[in-house]
Amino acid sequence: MKLSTAGESHGKCLVGIIEGLPSNLDIDIDEINYYLALRQSGYGRGGRQKIERDKVEILSGVRNLKTLASPLAFVIKNADYENWRGVMAPEGCDVSSKTLTKVRPGHADLTGMKKYAQSDARNILERASARETASRVVAGSIARQYLRALGVKISGYVKSVCGIEDNGNYTFFQIEKAKDSPLFMLDKEAESKAVKKIDSLKEAGDTAGGVIEIRINGLKSGFGSCMQYYSKLDAVLCGALMSVQAIKGVEVGLGFGCAYKEGSAVHDGIYPENGKYVRKTNNAGGIEGGMSNGEEIVLRAAMKPIPTLMKGLETIDYATGLPCTAAAERSDVCAVCAAEIVLESVAAFALADVVSKRLGGDNMQEVIKRYAGLED
Amino acid sequence: MKLSTAGESHGKCLVGIIEGLPSNLDIDIDEINYYLALRQSGYGRGGRQKIERDKVEILSGVRNLKTLASPLAFVIKNADYENWRGVMAPEGCDVSSKTLTKVRPGHADLTGMKKYAQSDARNILERASARETASRVVAGSIARQYLRALGVKISGYVKSVCGIEDNGNYTFFQIEKAKDSPLFMLDKEAESKAVKKIDSLKEAGDTAGGVIEIRINGLKSGFGSCMQYYSKLDAVLCGALMSVQAIKGVEVGLGFGCAYKEGSAVHDGIYPENGKYVRKTNNAGGIEGGMSNGEEIVLRAAMKPIPTLMKGLETIDYATGLPCTAAAERSDVCAVCAAEIVLESVAAFALADVVSKRLGGDNMQEVIKRYAGLED
Amino acid sequence: MKLSTAGESHGKCLVGIIEGLPSNLDIDIDEINYYLALRQSGYGRGGRQKIERDKVEILSGVRNLKTLASPLAFVIKNADYENWRGVMAPEGCDVSSKTLTKVRPGHADLTGMKKYAQSDARNILERASARETASRVVAGSIARQYLRALGVKISGYVKSVCGIEDNGNYTFFQIEKAKDSPLFMLDKEAESKAVKKIDSLKEAGDTAGGVIEIRINGLKSGFGSCMQYYSKLDAVLCGALMSVQAIKGVEVGLGFGCAYKEGSAVHDGIYPENGKYVRKTNNAGGIEGGMSNGEEIVLRAAMKPIPTLMKGLETIDYATGLPCTAAAERSDVCAVCAAEIVLESVAAFALADVVSKRLGGDNMQEVIKRYAGLED
Amino acid sequence: MKLSTAGESHGKCLVGIIEGLPSNLDIDIDEINYYLALRQSGYGRGGRQKIERDKVEILSGVRNLKTLASPLAFVIKNADYENWRGVMAPEGCDVSSKTLTKVRPGHADLTGMKKYAQSDARNILERASARETASRVVAGSIARQYLRALGVKISGYVKSVCGIEDNGNYTFFQIEKAKDSPLFMLDKEAESKAVKKIDSLKEAGDTAGGVIEIRINGLKSGFGSCMQYYSKLDAVLCGALMSVQAIKGVEVGLGFGCAYKEGSAVHDGIYPENGKYVRKTNNAGGIEGGMSNGEEIVLRAAMKPIPTLMKGLETIDYATGLPCTAAAERSDVCAVCAAEIVLESVAAFALADVVSKRLGGDNMQEVIKRYAGLED
Repeated sequence: MKLSTAGESHGKCLVGIIEGLPSNLDIDIDEINYYLALRQSGYGRGGRQKIERDKVEILSGVRNLKTLASPLAFVIKNADYENWRGVMAPEGCDVSSKTLTKVRPGHADLTGMKKYAQSDARNILERASARETASRVVAGSIARQYLRALGVKISGYVKSVCGIEDNGNYTFFQIEKAKDSPLFMLDKEAESKAVKKIDSLKEAGDTAGGVIEIRINGLKSGFGSCMQYYSKLDAVLCGALMSVQAIKGVEVGLGFGCAYKEGSAVHDGIYPENGKYVRKTNNAGGIEGGMSNGEEIVLRAAMKPIPTLMKGLETIDYATGLPCTAAAERSDVCAVCAAEIVLESVAAFALADVVSKRLGGDNMQEVIKRYAGLED
Repeated sequence: MKLSTAGESHGKCLVGIIEGLPSNLDIDIDEINYYLALRQSGYGRGGRQKIERDKVEILSGVRNLKTLASPLAFVIKNADYENWRGVMAPEGCDVSSKTLTKVRPGHADLTGMKKYAQSDARNILERASARETASRVVAGSIARQYLRALGVKISGYVKSVCGIEDNGNYTFFQIEKAKDSPLFMLDKEAESKAVKKIDSLKEAGDTAGGVIEIRINGLKSGFGSCMQYYSKLDAVLCGALMSVQAIKGVEVGLGFGCAYKEGSAVHDGIYPENGKYVRKTNNAGGIEGGMSNGEEIVLRAAMKPIPTLMKGLETIDYATGLPCTAAAERSDVCAVCAAEIVLESVAAFALADVVSKRLGGDNMQEVIKRYAGLED
Repeated sequence: MKLSTAGESHGKCLVGIIEGLPSNLDIDIDEINYYLALRQSGYGRGGRQKIERDKVEILSGVRNLKTLASPLAFVIKNADYENWRGVMAPEGCDVSSKTLTKVRPGHADLTGMKKYAQSDARNILERASARETASRVVAGSIARQYLRALGVKISGYVKSVCGIEDNGNYTFFQIEKAKDSPLFMLDKEAESKAVKKIDSLKEAGDTAGGVIEIRINGLKSGFGSCMQYYSKLDAVLCGALMSVQAIKGVEVGLGFGCAYKEGSAVHDGIYPENGKYVRKTNNAGGIEGGMSNGEEIVLRAAMKPIPTLMKGLETIDYATGLPCTAAAERSDVCAVCAAEIVLESVAAFALADVVSKRLGGDNMQEVIKRYAGLED
Repeated sequence: MKLSTAGESHGKCLVGIIEGLPSNLDIDIDEINYYLALRQSGYGRGGRQKIERDKVEILSGVRNLKTLASPLAFVIKNADYENWRGVMAPEGCDVSSKTLTKVRPGHADLTGMKKYAQSDARNILERASARETASRVVAGSIARQYLRALGVKISGYVKSVCGIEDNGNYTFFQIEKAKDSPLFMLDKEAESKAVKKIDSLKEAGDTAGGVIEIRINGLKSGFGSCMQYYSKLDAVLCGALMSVQAIKGVEVGLGFGCAYKEGSAVHDGIYPENGKYVRKTNNAGGIEGGMSNGEEIVLRAAMKPIPTLMKGLETIDYATGLPCTAAAERSDVCAVCAAEIVLESVAAFALADVVSKRLGGDNMQEVIKRYAGLED
């Protein structure tokens, strides 16, 4: 499976094409929209999220809610485009308004202007914007539906916000409830502290990041490969997570924690139980030798604070070369919930690709049958 | 640039083919061998490293120490093959000896046997072994030579071993000296503690991992891209690092630390200085918006402890289904130095690929000229 | 550059995403529409072409008629969708009407039904339809604009229709006029015979194919590579041409004719002329050793007759297994003009990808400068 | 499956790495060597073929004649390297002897020198040489063994040499005998004329090409896809054939002949027979809608005459810019038999890749079972 995404933040729409889906997969459009809405939710979001109420429209690849195995194209309209047509239209517009030259640290602005020979960072930021991730939520939601047909589920929660941590150990079942909370946290006390932290950061014109944990449940062993470096499941999944805007670190299972313990405290013993081989711990996070080992897959990612601060950062004006305060294009204080949904989506899509390469298959009947034929 | 690697741990040799090199790059074979030797060095290594004294032999793609732009193939002979020919030869051998069925937790053994329909984990572990990384050191060394012709250098050091940390802040120049030390650490006090820790783990039949920091110095801005998710430099580099055996976490710049601070304490302001734009901090680790920003690139990776413990882990015998102690195929206590060299190599190769895509070019004269034409 | 296309023949629209364009390329939308109109033109076309008047709409990647280097997404609406919504809508529709089970020889119908587990060939033919090529004309038109900025032009003409041949030798300048003619032929006598042939085939309920010649003018030498098999320019271009619906053969320069002559009559001697090296013949068709050699590139493709015949072909009804006459979904007699435009487009896009790999570059200024720096 | 090849014509060896093979495929090394010998055979070959007696050595990916699913690396030593070490050694050599500047028309020489900034065509021709195809014969032979495990066979014959044609219609069974003949032709009268033609060309210092037909027998329907342009089986196979040195045209089934007939004479009707659907003709050459349709796949390729003529072609000396007679590096008069073997091999490998994508699977047991589960 391949995903190509397109679309500027204030352009007409976001677009995506998914190639490589089998036929006869049932598509639940409401569920896609549910995840799109979740991506716009969470405590600490700014005004833009109220303007856009993202809804997917499928353009091709699906007939009567079943895939055709042809490329699935979709769009998410930018509701705000009507207000931006005059400065963004492909067919012709006034590029002299809405310019941005007070380049924002932490963004693509300055580097992008040099690389793409632009004098207006508008021509960079429109695409570099995290709004692009809405496309990836759509693709991820469809990947989720493909995986669920095989019994594989993906969920996650927010583990920390600006240093306020939830140190609980949760089952997949518990984690599936996290999205009912304002910050997708499970420890209510930590969450309430995090809400207050966001409030105070907002007042200060500052921003927050956090840590997000993603879990994949029900996947059989043997996905990915130990035979060539680029097909290792951990490399594929972590590479995908790192491609999400604002992510600065990723880890699997015990992750960085592995580096601080001796081997006997890290590696998960194997035990016979009712004719199967089980583990009592999951420090490996479900991946050994570059392959799923049948345990739950556990991934964590670190999100940096939103780099657009209302109080402004010190920077330069590219038009004059003089020092100034950075432009403030939007005003989220914290977007960990959005990131959580995007990370789930990105993991789902990357995994669906790995699964489809092992199973092959042209139609869902065949795919399901082949998955059933694999050893646990 | 593409790298295909091949070769089993006790097979005839390791092999690699690098495609996409320009012509007229000077190749320094001694330098490749220097990095191969470093990969075998470091305090805490076991007996295998004494058997193999890796030397590269270039088979094609180079004439009189200059690249031809044709695929560069190389081999590293396995000196120990003569002792293993009888159980490993492709042309025919006795597969009933040297079998391994007491599958080792933390390795590919158990999952690989199910996936590839094998009753002997020898058929899995021979390729899953970290010996494969010698090929990647060769490719990385050549990538390094390509990058150096552009003024780009790569180095690194060991930041911690089994929880014993070196918390110094080092310049690139300082880091380049790290390989003179037994554990590639810069803080001599921390290193001497780490050596003692390894000694005591060895006695206990246990193992250690650690954290490694890799730096890329001298790279101009604009490598990678903010325009499509899979071309982001952080995704590409971190995906590459995660493909190294035993790596369980990766981060860029402040990394997971970003999640614990407010935005104003994380983002690196931009200042005019002598007609250039500079940063006073580098929390971004040299990557913003999926592109190099002209600052030093800072990557860190967490290595898990070696999963083969002399004292053995609890596991099962795949032949009988009964509980047992895991086989102990080799006896390194700690391989952070090897990992450091491999991670540098892998980063160098991944970066060279990104650089060559932006520059294009068929011969080094052209490549160097195009790089010189880019803005800083 | 990569192109993903999507869209069913009677679905909402055709969609495409082009990745890898540099910034600051001027986009001429009228010219794209000009080629879309040409794709629908030509003597011998049926009723569908009158229903659809294809116009491209650019959704992203372009601002004020200049590329942003972000993915360029476009749609071509299917005007007829309103009449088909009830049987084609992704969101839900009645799939029991407009079914097709009298599978048409020469089409994907029968094989597609088995592969994708469908009982209605509608679910196959909607995507397999040559209507998809409209997307490729859009992408090819944009590629053409990229190439023209470097001085490279692409044109072509119809060389034969159902065995009626135009045996002239034409310059590129002459060929550029071919699209003024009803069958894109240059020899008016041959064309008038071909028109009559089409008339008589139409009366007989039969169809015609033909041979099309594509030329690429102004390309410098050295595009493609002799160093690895998959980067050979002839392999890339001919693979692309073969991916066009109904194409059954492709050749370069003298092509199959080479096989019938001795070497001294085939190979093009090289001569010094005003400080350059020139050829007096071009049997190689501008490609030697898998690279452009600086001469005009000459490609020819054979198109089979349209496989939907009004008089019907013998086949079976997949629903019953009984013999029947094949369904007649549409009624072109001859579509060589459409194919000519599509083949030009596909060649343009494939070439633009090859060119962009050699040049690299992020913005058109850089791309143009690098091309100028190459030897002829 | 992926194949990377490496190696210069007079370098140490040819090398290849095949990635993506399943485990437990039985490897027949003698059969690989049989095809390597056939590649060196055929009436009209020159002295080089007597120097090299190609034998494959497998370096990795196989243990005791069974694949491990790890990358399969192989080498073919260049027996002549000992005589060339002094001018070719990667580690250092005298590049001032064996130079070639009298660039040969029809070869990569002149273009390659400009592209790769070389003053000696030796640095180009060593890799551009058709000797590279020996690697592809090895890979193709292994692909053949993979396909045969599924009941799919590949063969071919020479259809014409320098205009002397064999116009017979042959069954696959008949074609399998062609390799017993000096020119792989089936019509003995045509072959004896062709032998004489080669004799007279040799005397004249001239060369010949020809047409080769490749057949794939026993492949089920549904390989390739009608859903995206780049996965069409005809595009994939013909692109592969065009990547072979000296091939200037390719066609499927009736090929260019399709363009000369009306639709009713071209398309293959479908008929019920014993519960299956059969064709009485195979003008489609086994591919419809970009997919195999269950009939025999028929491909033809046109080979140009060897471009190195003993009598020399008119050219220039790159060192002086003056007119001269081209260098004559080797002396085959006709290499259609070699091309026949290479084209079979290349088709086998390209097809194995297509097959493995549809089937997925990690071990041969699984692959065979999945193939058996497909509809004919």
